[in-house]
Amino acid sequence: MSTRRPTIGVFDSGFGGLTVLKALYELIPEADYAHFGDTARLPCGSKSVETAARAAVEAAHFLESHGAQTLVIACNTATALALDRITVAAHVPVVGVVEPGADAAAIASRNRKVVVIGTHATVSSHAYRKALDARGLEAREKACPLLVPLVEEGWVEHPVTQEVARIYLAEAFADGFHDADTMVLGCTHYPLLKPLLQRVTPVHVSIVDSAESTARAVATRFQQLVPSSLSNGTERRSVPRMKFFATDSTEKFQQLGQRFLGHPIENVQHVDLKE
Amino acid sequence: MSTRRPTIGVFDSGFGGLTVLKALYELIPEADYAHFGDTARLPCGSKSVETAARAAVEAAHFLESHGAQTLVIACNTATALALDRITVAAHVPVVGVVEPGADAAAIASRNRKVVVIGTHATVSSHAYRKALDARGLEAREKACPLLVPLVEEGWVEHPVTQEVARIYLAEAFADGFHDADTMVLGCTHYPLLKPLLQRVTPVHVSIVDSAESTARAVATRFQQLVPSSLSNGTERRSVPRMKFFATDSTEKFQQLGQRFLGHPIENVQHVDLKE
Repeated sequence: MSTRRPTIGVFDSGFGGLTVLKALYELIPEADYAHFGDTARLPCGSKSVETAARAAVEAAHFLESHGAQTLVIACNTATALALDRITVAAHVPVVGVVEPGADAAAIASRNRKVVVIGTHATVSSHAYRKALDARGLEAREKACPLLVPLVEEGWVEHPVTQEVARIYLAEAFADGFHDADTMVLGCTHYPLLKPLLQRVTPVHVSIVDSAESTARAVATRFQQLVPSSLSNGTERRSVPRMKFFATDSTEKFQQLGQRFLGHPIENVQHVDLKE
Repeated sequence: MSTRRPTIGVFDSGFGGLTVLKALYELIPEADYAHFGDTARLPCGSKSVETAARAAVEAAHFLESHGAQTLVIACNTATALALDRITVAAHVPVVGVVEPGADAAAIASRNRKVVVIGTHATVSSHAYRKALDARGLEAREKACPLLVPLVEEGWVEHPVTQEVARIYLAEAFADGFHDADTMVLGCTHYPLLKPLLQRVTPVHVSIVDSAESTARAVATRFQQLVPSSLSNGTERRSVPRMKFFATDSTEKFQQLGQRFLGHPIENVQHVDLKE
């Protein structure tokens, strides 16, 4: 039985992708997961295209070599900068976080005006603007570089974080976007700030969480692949099995990662892709 | 004449080391400078020892191959985690920022109680505590991880930064350290916050800038090596020549770097140490 469990490979440039892993295993507990956190190389979302793409392609091959039959790029920056390169380089289907986020925004928005918040690199790539434009939506992209370090500091319910978010969102919803009715969380760290962001976002705005949207997209695809598994009540209650790989300190991955995953992380294996 | 100008190699894990370069060329304009910003690999001061040390040793060899006769490790995290390794691996004298900072604190402090602020990695290494202990000073080390991204966001005179600094320093000067009379800026980003930090630090506290202290230590050593150059008035007014190398985007290095250096940066060369 266990040999038939499919493996979903999850690539992340740091810790935030654990919010996507969490959404994934809650929706698809039948799968095994191999999670690769490239914590030594891409922690800040401020990388150039070349640096991000090269690291992501290496990680994709690593996850394939560990049995991944589907790859989820659980990082908006890596998706924005490198999804095309990973898709070409990989031998299995690849799902990024931008397209599912754009799909969800297209469903949520009535007036077709959307604000997207993310890292500098994600915003500079205009990946969301292109994806939303293709769906007939007008997008304002706003870089919010302080939100990641605030989440990593653990200040998810803190007056400073609320003030930073208020400043960023006032800029995002200014100049013709005061009536935008949807906001996409275009960074996998931001789901931890959802309650706070809901308080400082105009009341008429729906918040789209790209981590959740991506998990739903993968679940739909997965259901097409293994419908018997998902329709089997016994099997649905199975416990997902997870392997973790990190390129920097495994202790740090365990400590910081559990905040994102929502429960303790065990068995993190150190990986050095440079050798 | 120009062939006799010595070259000082400056290694930085990101952008902050440019504050050390600035202090260096103001004190030693007779030298040429080769500055290596390892922006692709070590931007956040949150790396493990292995990752930091390996990158720093590679950079040291790169700078030597570009003619550096002295190496300045212009990053507290790299100094704290990798100075020993770099010193062993290098063929030229190596100066870090921790020892000069500790020396300056030992001179500034009357009651031998010092607060050191820095990144997580610098604080966890206890490099400052050890250096200050060796000089008979008691140290409280306090990680202030939000200050680097706040500086990089350009919020050097911003109410949010002031509030963050107030919170961090209240913790640093609590529990037996309320009477500490010296504070070491143990991160090369922090000199940009010096006016703000001065406002939120208790009035009796002297602030020691490890960038300045390091430049003075190098200048002293340099004067011993080439006394004729430094004592020659004409030569002192010479313009330092600088070459810049960055492992990530050169455009980003130019844009962000000029804030730290205080003037425009030209001729940045991209370097890929992985090849």
